Amino acid sequence: DFLTALHDIVPAFGASTDNLRRCRLNGMADCGDRHKHIYQRAMLLVEQVKVSKGSPLVTCLLEGPSGSGKTALSATVGIDSDFPYVKIVSAESMIGLHESTKCAQIVKVFEDAYKSPLSIIILDDIERLLEYVAIGPRFSNIISQTLLVLLKRLPPDGKKLMVIGTTSEVSFLDSVGLCDAFAVTYHVPTLKTSDAKKVLQQLNVFADYDIDAAAEALNDMPIKKLYMLIEMAAQGEAGGSAEAIYSGKEKIKINHFYECIEDVVRY
Amino acid sequence: DFLTALHDIVPAFGASTDNLRRCRLNGMADCGDRHKHIYQRAMLLVEQVKVSKGSPLVTCLLEGPSGSGKTALSATVGIDSDFPYVKIVSAESMIGLHESTKCAQIVKVFEDAYKSPLSIIILDDIERLLEYVAIGPRFSNIISQTLLVLLKRLPPDGKKLMVIGTTSEVSFLDSVGLCDAFAVTYHVPTLKTSDAKKVLQQLNVFADYDIDAAAEALNDMPIKKLYMLIEMAAQGEAGGSAEAIYSGKEKIKINHFYECIEDVVRY
Amino acid sequence: DFLTALHDIVPAFGASTDNLRRCRLNGMADCGDRHKHIYQRAMLLVEQVKVSKGSPLVTCLLEGPSGSGKTALSATVGIDSDFPYVKIVSAESMIGLHESTKCAQIVKVFEDAYKSPLSIIILDDIERLLEYVAIGPRFSNIISQTLLVLLKRLPPDGKKLMVIGTTSEVSFLDSVGLCDAFAVTYHVPTLKTSDAKKVLQQLNVFADYDIDAAAEALNDMPIKKLYMLIEMAAQGEAGGSAEAIYSGKEKIKINHFYECIEDVVRY
Amino acid sequence: DFLTALHDIVPAFGASTDNLRRCRLNGMADCGDRHKHIYQRAMLLVEQVKVSKGSPLVTCLLEGPSGSGKTALSATVGIDSDFPYVKIVSAESMIGLHESTKCAQIVKVFEDAYKSPLSIIILDDIERLLEYVAIGPRFSNIISQTLLVLLKRLPPDGKKLMVIGTTSEVSFLDSVGLCDAFAVTYHVPTLKTSDAKKVLQQLNVFADYDIDAAAEALNDMPIKKLYMLIEMAAQGEAGGSAEAIYSGKEKIKINHFYECIEDVVRY
Amino acid sequence: DFLTALHDIVPAFGASTDNLRRCRLNGMADCGDRHKHIYQRAMLLVEQVKVSKGSPLVTCLLEGPSGSGKTALSATVGIDSDFPYVKIVSAESMIGLHESTKCAQIVKVFEDAYKSPLSIIILDDIERLLEYVAIGPRFSNIISQTLLVLLKRLPPDGKKLMVIGTTSEVSFLDSVGLCDAFAVTYHVPTLKTSDAKKVLQQLNVFADYDIDAAAEALNDMPIKKLYMLIEMAAQGEAGGSAEAIYSGKEKIKINHFYECIEDVVRY
Amino acid sequence: DFLTALHDIVPAFGASTDNLRRCRLNGMADCGDRHKHIYQRAMLLVEQVKVSKGSPLVTCLLEGPSGSGKTALSATVGIDSDFPYVKIVSAESMIGLHESTKCAQIVKVFEDAYKSPLSIIILDDIERLLEYVAIGPRFSNIISQTLLVLLKRLPPDGKKLMVIGTTSEVSFLDSVGLCDAFAVTYHVPTLKTSDAKKVLQQLNVFADYDIDAAAEALNDMPIKKLYMLIEMAAQGEAGGSAEAIYSGKEKIKINHFYECIEDVVRY
Ligand SMILES: Nc1ncnc2c1ncn2[C@@H]1O[C@H](COP(=O)(O)OP(=O)(O)OP(=O)(O)O)[C@@H](O)[C@H]1O
Ligand SMILES: Nc1ncnc2c1ncn2[C@@H]1O[C@H](COP(=O)(O)OP(=O)(O)OP(=O)(O)O)[C@@H](O)[C@H]1O
Ligand SMILES: Nc1ncnc2c1ncn2[C@@H]1O[C@H](COP(=O)(O)OP(=O)(O)OP(=O)(O)O)[C@@H](O)[C@H]1O
Ligand SMILES: Nc1ncnc2c1ncn2[C@@H]1O[C@H](COP(=O)(O)OP(=O)(O)OP(=O)(O)O)[C@@H](O)[C@H]1O
Ligand SMILES: Nc1ncnc2c1ncn2[C@@H]1O[C@H](COP(=O)(O)OP(=O)(O)OP(=O)(O)O)[C@@H](O)[C@H]1O
Ligand SMILES: Nc1ncnc2c1ncn2[C@@H]1O[C@H](COP(=O)(O)OP(=O)(O)OP(=O)(O)O)[C@@H](O)[C@H]1O
Ligand SMILES: [Mg+2]
Ligand SMILES: [Mg+2]
Ligand SMILES: [Mg+2]
Ligand SMILES: [Mg+2]
Ligand SMILES: [Mg+2]
Ligand SMILES: [Mg+2]
Repeated sequence: DFLTALHDIVPAFGASTDNLRRCRLNGMADCGDRHKHIYQRAMLLVEQVKVSKGSPLVTCLLEGPSGSGKTALSATVGIDSDFPYVKIVSAESMIGLHESTKCAQIVKVFEDAYKSPLSIIILDDIERLLEYVAIGPRFSNIISQTLLVLLKRLPPDGKKLMVIGTTSEVSFLDSVGLCDAFAVTYHVPTLKTSDAKKVLQQLNVFADYDIDAAAEALNDMPIKKLYMLIEMAAQGEAGGSAEAIYSGKEKIKINHFYECIEDVVRY
Repeated sequence: DFLTALHDIVPAFGASTDNLRRCRLNGMADCGDRHKHIYQRAMLLVEQVKVSKGSPLVTCLLEGPSGSGKTALSATVGIDSDFPYVKIVSAESMIGLHESTKCAQIVKVFEDAYKSPLSIIILDDIERLLEYVAIGPRFSNIISQTLLVLLKRLPPDGKKLMVIGTTSEVSFLDSVGLCDAFAVTYHVPTLKTSDAKKVLQQLNVFADYDIDAAAEALNDMPIKKLYMLIEMAAQGEAGGSAEAIYSGKEKIKINHFYECIEDVVRY
Repeated sequence: DFLTALHDIVPAFGASTDNLRRCRLNGMADCGDRHKHIYQRAMLLVEQVKVSKGSPLVTCLLEGPSGSGKTALSATVGIDSDFPYVKIVSAESMIGLHESTKCAQIVKVFEDAYKSPLSIIILDDIERLLEYVAIGPRFSNIISQTLLVLLKRLPPDGKKLMVIGTTSEVSFLDSVGLCDAFAVTYHVPTLKTSDAKKVLQQLNVFADYDIDAAAEALNDMPIKKLYMLIEMAAQGEAGGSAEAIYSGKEKIKINHFYECIEDVVRY
Repeated sequence: DFLTALHDIVPAFGASTDNLRRCRLNGMADCGDRHKHIYQRAMLLVEQVKVSKGSPLVTCLLEGPSGSGKTALSATVGIDSDFPYVKIVSAESMIGLHESTKCAQIVKVFEDAYKSPLSIIILDDIERLLEYVAIGPRFSNIISQTLLVLLKRLPPDGKKLMVIGTTSEVSFLDSVGLCDAFAVTYHVPTLKTSDAKKVLQQLNVFADYDIDAAAEALNDMPIKKLYMLIEMAAQGEAGGSAEAIYSGKEKIKINHFYECIEDVVRY
Repeated sequence: DFLTALHDIVPAFGASTDNLRRCRLNGMADCGDRHKHIYQRAMLLVEQVKVSKGSPLVTCLLEGPSGSGKTALSATVGIDSDFPYVKIVSAESMIGLHESTKCAQIVKVFEDAYKSPLSIIILDDIERLLEYVAIGPRFSNIISQTLLVLLKRLPPDGKKLMVIGTTSEVSFLDSVGLCDAFAVTYHVPTLKTSDAKKVLQQLNVFADYDIDAAAEALNDMPIKKLYMLIEMAAQGEAGGSAEAIYSGKEKIKINHFYECIEDVVRY
Repeated sequence: DFLTALHDIVPAFGASTDNLRRCRLNGMADCGDRHKHIYQRAMLLVEQVKVSKGSPLVTCLLEGPSGSGKTALSATVGIDSDFPYVKIVSAESMIGLHESTKCAQIVKVFEDAYKSPLSIIILDDIERLLEYVAIGPRFSNIISQTLLVLLKRLPPDGKKLMVIGTTSEVSFLDSVGLCDAFAVTYHVPTLKTSDAKKVLQQLNVFADYDIDAAAEALNDMPIKKLYMLIEMAAQGEAGGSAEAIYSGKEKIKINHFYECIEDVVRY
């Protein structure tokens, strides 16, 4: 039924950059040196794939805490590569499917890529593709075997492929042998105080005398949580103040901001 | 068969506020500050969803001991939000269904919500939706993967969605990664003596000189057990006294009340 | 196939009190204060269900060692309630069925009960309904999830339901969360010497000077084993004396009685 | 498919005493007091079933090491009972069947027994019926649940049933709760020196001056191994002496007999 | 589907001695006293089956390290028995079949044997028939239950059957209860120095002054490895010398022989 | 369905040397003595198969760390053997297939080989053929049983077969008994400093005064990682320098090379 599953798949995935752009809902702010460094290295690999003769397959893993910006970064690399074929493989478009159907969809993306001279495939949230859950642990071995083989299989003569994986469960991936299957691995971190400050300055929702205190409180937070917190705090204690704050008429009260952090951070 | 399951689902769930109102059989009594605080914060999130541009998806988890009032609270938020689409997803309406059918029903509720500009989905008793049992432990990984993806997937452009989850097995949810999937978490506690006293005063079934002793005995009890106990004690030792007590002619005998507590509390 | 199973079920279960009466093959002897107390409390709950407005669902668990009289006691409460709908759900009538079929049968009993203004459902030997076995342990999670939901789901407006469960594996039930699902729990014990003596006096098969020794030997024995032992001993050492003993012409020899106890009790 | 399996069963099992007699290939030798005592007690239970009014179901378990004579003893009780319905349920006639088919066959034997006023059912080698294997351990829970219910379910009004079980894995049976399901349990032991001597005297294959040494060497051996050993030793060291020995012309050489024991006994 | 599997089996297995002879590709060399002793004892059992009246079923297990000559020995006993029905049951002819089909094939061999007055069945490599693997461990319980019953079931009146099993995983067989199911067990060992020397003398590939050193190096090696080693060494260091050595013109160089041992033996 | 799977297989695999040549994308560089020694020994076994009469089946396992050159080495032996039938069995051509289909494909390759007088079968990456994953661990027992039997089954009269296996999970293979199933095992190591230097000299991308430092940094690296590293470093820090380096106009900067190593090596 794997084969029938293979045929049931919708032939094309549509213009992919739409999907890629959705991964960067708020655009890309400058959020520190480490993020920038990873971006540059990844773009070097893109070039290597383009010019290399000996290594038609280059694989690279971005790992780091949940919400640290891995997917957004991969999507940016994909968009900036200007390769003719760039696809993101995500659990979102495969909810509830049987593991062999998921498997077939993943294989299809690779088969399609093999037809293009230069391709990028983003395997987003690999632990979710593998249906991983820590209890047990449980996961789909069919899909993990498929990825293990696909990450090693060379594209046909003359074709070149870059695979970018993302995960927030790097130790699980390691234990199924998927880390070793990637040639290069980069750690995408949470924000440090200085990184957070940079982002806050771009957002301009705090009074100048509060911005250091706010950045300090955001130390070691993933970029995703930072955005969520700003939104919560912008409502104000009694609601209704969001418009004023985003338009710059008011600033977020630092004390209310501290309260919001307590709702969001679990100890 | 997931897809066929998807089609087999009854198209509409009917006027949802009926279902929500059934969750508050005895209306909503004032049962203390903590309950009030959570209600207010949840209503702020409702407003945030309404006005926000950057975060079209807000998720919030209510966790706490069995019978502490989580479902009633969620239903109240849903009713008070005045959102055009408010649905409760509960194991009650899916008894005996296969896990992939349950999965399809849950997905359907989200797909329906994506069509409304403003929606609230209550995932009630998540451990029951996941068919969790502590021995093993066992649970449906298909459903847990589905929830993990749905709690992260953004609604389409211009649509906004708030998801409220409830659970009395927070450590299990944590171990499958579902706690981290919610942006905010609130703990809904049992009643303290002072909370219990407030409720007893509203019920008016004890003599004034007994009310403090009764409230003391109810310390750390969930609101559900409190109501059950009052009903039991109101029958009287030999039965037949319920009418007199509810009409206010008689009061509950404190000693009989103590005996009833012993039947209900397990050591 | 759960739904088809649901339709395949024979519509009515027949006059139920026949089934209830079979659970009390030897009638009900007076076997001590604890048994009497439980009976009275259970009958108070019956009345509560009848008169209550706030709690249309009352649930009660009888737990205790194998053969201690739990099923007989539940059946007696069911018969004495005079409710129009009283059903016993037992593994006996579902031997060899698939767990989803059993599940459907159980749901059907509840659906039928929801049509009657006042109902009692006896879930007899819950560990057997759950196909529990200590090795593993193994059990049917489908059935346990079904019971967890049914024990919490309110009957429709204006209908009232009492559920009585019995089990001799209370710690297993606790570990799957089924104990907490019952509002009240009573422990049905083995017989103490004084309880056993009461029963022996009613049976009149020992000489007066032996009755205390016999009762002493029966200390801590479940009522079921007591009846089995009397039958064995009544045959006499060489067989053939049963008629004489039951007609009162002869008495059971205390030494032979001791020997029989040794065959029955495992150390 | 349990039900279809139920219908596929061949209606009658044939004259059962043939099957019973096959269990005693060498007839029944006198092999000591303990075996005799168990036989007598079992026959008393047979009588109890016949005359009792209060206990229409009597259950009895014979447990002991492999080859100790449990099946032969049960078959003898069945033959000597003169009950109109005596059946042996054995794994031999169900090789390779699916567990639900086995289950249906077992239920069928009980349903047939319920039609006879007096019946005996022998559940032979219960661990084999349950497909038990120590690694894991693994076994059929469907069959074990079926037996647990059948051993408790009363026959219809006016019918009486005795169930005899045999097992050499009593601790496994205990751990699945099957030991407690039997009212009485007897341990069928290996032979002691004195028991072995009795059997050897009946066989008459040793010289008088060797018989005590031979019996001593057989201490703590099950009756089955004893017979196997005599056969092996009777061939003689170089073969060909069996006829002479069985006809009484020669005797078994005690030294060769010792060698044979070493082949058979594992240390 | 067990039954359909049963019918799908090819009716006859062909002239079996062909299969038996293939198990002894190099003929049977004299490889020491222990091997000879086991052969003689097994032939005595063959005679016992032929003449015995009381034990129509004799079972015997050959266990020992991989490659020690168990299968060759069993085949030799089968050939030398001159019984009209001698079959070998081996995993080789059942590759990839479902366990219930394998089961049916095994049962078929026994059913065929029951039609012959005198039969031998060789269950070769029982751990392979059981699909045993040490991790887990995993194995087919259906097949192991089938063997447990078949090894105990008596052939019909007047028929006699000998079953010879072989295994190199005796402790696994013990843990599933299969060792106890055989009446007699023999350990087939590796070769000792003196045994190896005997075989080397027959092969005549070493110079006389090397033969003791070579035999010493082969101490505790199974006969299979010995043959493999001789073949490897006979190629010579640079290849091409095999013909000269087998024709006796050259001898194996002892130093090269030592090197070959290092490739083959794992530490 | 194993049999139907067997028939569904495409009859021939095409000219196999194409597949073999793809395993050596960069040709074969001289990478040290150990690799050379293994090649020579393997070629001796090829000759043994050709000339031997007694051992028509020779099996050999190459094990070593991921990327150490095992597959390339096996392919080279296959190509250099000049046998009429040389096939590589690899997980790449069986992605997503059910384990019984994989099993049938493997069997088919052996059946085809049995028709050729001289054959080589390469079982590449056996842990991947077995769908092995360390968590659990999990793997396909059907396939492992099939390999265990195929590695022992003799080809038909007059046919000869060599089987070469490769694995980077030798301890897993050992624990399922597959190591013992191979007659000979060779360890294919990572490169030592001196081996790496040899390869670097052939590539000619470092300045002479850097080559020793570079080789030192590559100590204990598998050949695969060495090639990947050279490619990365050849892009230069800012990209664009690859052509100049490969054409010999520029050399790799040793400091940038060190940085690349840090991206690739995980601590
Ligand atoms: N550089 C950036 N500037 C602005 N927003 C960003 C940036 N990086 C990430 N984000 C935003 O932060 C949120 C989280 O980012 P993203 O989804 O890439 O994180 P992630 O590491 O993939 O998280 P997860 O582990 O949950 O998959 C997204 O809403 C994304 O748009
Ligand atoms: N504020 C309140 N005033 C009056 N009754 C309440 C209130 N809160 C809850 N209840 C009642 O208490 C009972 C338990 O409440 P609810 O079902 O919301 O608890 P829960 O925490 O969801 O329990 P569970 O963990 O079992 O799902 C219900 O009957 C509900 O009507
Ligand atoms: N009060 C009583 N007077 C006379 N007989 C009784 C009484 N209570 C129970 N019995 C008898 O004792 C036996 C065991 O009772 P019952 O089946 O109710 O026990 P149980 O606790 O349900 O046992 P189990 O745990 O095995 O289900 C029955 O035969 C029943 O008729
Ligand atoms: N009293 C006896 N006299 C003669 N032979 C006997 C006697 N009891 C048992 N046997 C024989 O001993 C053998 C083993 O007896 P039986 O099969 O009853 O033992 P078991 O305890 O049921 O063994 P298992 O545990 O293997 O089922 C049989 O061949 C039987 O005929
Ligand atoms: N006595 C013998 N003389 C010559 N060759 C022998 C002798 N015994 C065994 N062999 C050969 O040794 C090899 C191994 O023997 P055999 O297959 O019987 O061993 P085994 O113990 O069954 O091994 P395994 O455990 O792998 O099944 C075979 O090739 C066989 O022909
Ligand atoms: N001697 C060699 N000269 C040049 N390149 C080589 C040599 N040996 C191997 N390679 C190259 O190194 C890479 C890895 O080799 P190969 O695939 O054989 O390793 P492997 O040990 O099979 O790895 P894996 O464990 O991942 O299967 C391949 O690209 C191969 O072409
Ligand atoms: Mg992501
Ligand atoms: Mg709730
Ligand atoms: Mg009961
Ligand atoms: Mg027996
Ligand atoms: Mg063998
Ligand atoms: Mg390889």
